Amino acid sequence: MINGATRLLVIVGDPVAHVRSPLIFNPLLARMAHDAVLVPWHAPAPHFATVMEGLMRTANLDGIIVTFPFKERAHPLAHRVGPMAKRVGAINALRREADGDWVGEMFDGFGLVHAIEANGERCAGRKVVLIGAGGAGSAIAFALADAGAASLTIHDRNGERAAALARRVGASHQRIELASGQFDLEAADLLINATPVGLNPRDGLPVPIQRLRPEMTVIDIVPASSPTPLLKMAQAAGCPHVGGTAMVEGQAETILAFFGMAAARDDRLGRDEGLQGSLQ
Amino acid sequence: MINGATRLLVIVGDPVAHVRSPLIFNPLLARMAHDAVLVPWHAPAPHFATVMEGLMRTANLDGIIVTFPFKERAHPLAHRVGPMAKRVGAINALRREADGDWVGEMFDGFGLVHAIEANGERCAGRKVVLIGAGGAGSAIAFALADAGAASLTIHDRNGERAAALARRVGASHQRIELASGQFDLEAADLLINATPVGLNPRDGLPVPIQRLRPEMTVIDIVPASSPTPLLKMAQAAGCPHVGGTAMVEGQAETILAFFGMAAARDDRLGRDEGLQGSLQ
Repeated sequence: MINGATRLLVIVGDPVAHVRSPLIFNPLLARMAHDAVLVPWHAPAPHFATVMEGLMRTANLDGIIVTFPFKERAHPLAHRVGPMAKRVGAINALRREADGDWVGEMFDGFGLVHAIEANGERCAGRKVVLIGAGGAGSAIAFALADAGAASLTIHDRNGERAAALARRVGASHQRIELASGQFDLEAADLLINATPVGLNPRDGLPVPIQRLRPEMTVIDIVPASSPTPLLKMAQAAGCPHVGGTAMVEGQAETILAFFGMAAARDDRLGRDEGLQGSLQ
Repeated sequence: MINGATRLLVIVGDPVAHVRSPLIFNPLLARMAHDAVLVPWHAPAPHFATVMEGLMRTANLDGIIVTFPFKERAHPLAHRVGPMAKRVGAINALRREADGDWVGEMFDGFGLVHAIEANGERCAGRKVVLIGAGGAGSAIAFALADAGAASLTIHDRNGERAAALARRVGASHQRIELASGQFDLEAADLLINATPVGLNPRDGLPVPIQRLRPEMTVIDIVPASSPTPLLKMAQAAGCPHVGGTAMVEGQAETILAFFGMAAARDDRLGRDEGLQGSLQ
């Protein structure tokens, strides 16, 4: 029951009507007995800076989750960022510090690796094709490299953006085989869509795809309430598949811990340890 | 259950932890089957303008309730105001129009008259002492004059503010006897505290009071969760009394109708009639 003392969390995006996060986070908050609520926050892209300024000055707002298309634009608004955000150049969560400063971090990569592994697939040693080198795509690339993927081929409609991401990942990870541009699905173990294509009901596939081998795991981070065209194709081909809601679920407790609302069932992720310790 | 498509309402104040509005509005919204939620919004006074700019650019926010100490500062932020706001110079509600403009109106006076009458007291023909000539006090003064009060004596720690309010009410109401400054509780039927004194647990009475006659109705608009010192004194003296929560309850359905969320049980207050028709 929301009252005057209830603490606030928001998820900022444009659009937001499709986001699943309130349905995932609010039951978690209730189970953890936190008097806090997550509400959707629709910042029209032209007014993103104005809306964020207002949010960051709101005294009973403790955390901001950032979603499409703001993950990169939100990064410079943070007073400080965590190690993953620093590598990726994008954030998907901001928390208020006691002094009023805001600290940003990026959890999408962690969340997706977690979701893939919760689905019975592994990332270590696997050959991955990643579509999309934006904020979420960058986070996923670094997290897959951290998780020991054997190879990563990055495709983006902006070829230079894909190549730049491959170079950045390569600078910190020597063992992974990196490429950008052309990709070969016949050799891939994992195909990941990290673009927003599929969110709009009129969208098709994020890239032209002839055939999906049933051995390949197909992952689509688009948080649509019904299966995207890519996920439908994966279902039809008999591929294991993971949807966008799983990526959100895979990071929800970690984000709440980052906000200082540690999950009772995994207090290793409390704000005084782990992520907090490595913020810079 | 809050989801991505849930529409937002906020109550903006400094502080907000004490406000009762979420507890009053959210059950009403649920009963009316509106997928909307009211959350408390703490705008620190120095950042009020920044916070309001962000709120007014948020696309899924349909209404803003304004509480202490912002009712007067919010008035010039509205693109247009209703007739009561125009007379009072303060607002306590803002709604988004289809074109993105915001329309303000002031419902505190209406809400308090409604609460007094719901308590079995009448306003017509009564002698009233009003303490506080700020945003809420001004709205109450005009609403009491509209309701046919016989006399109104206004007291404020800023004597000129009280005198100015008496003059403004007198300019539009010839029948009511108006005074400001000194007041005589022995002759009053209604005593109204429209200051925030009583909100802080260390507060005393808003003005020195020797004695309350048991015939007098005592009203305190401070929305405290436990009785204010003035209400405790009224209880001890055996006076009928009305607290601040009643003023909020007395206007809740009207504010929701103003936001375009008409109450099923009183559709005369829909946005296409009544208040809407007289906006200027």
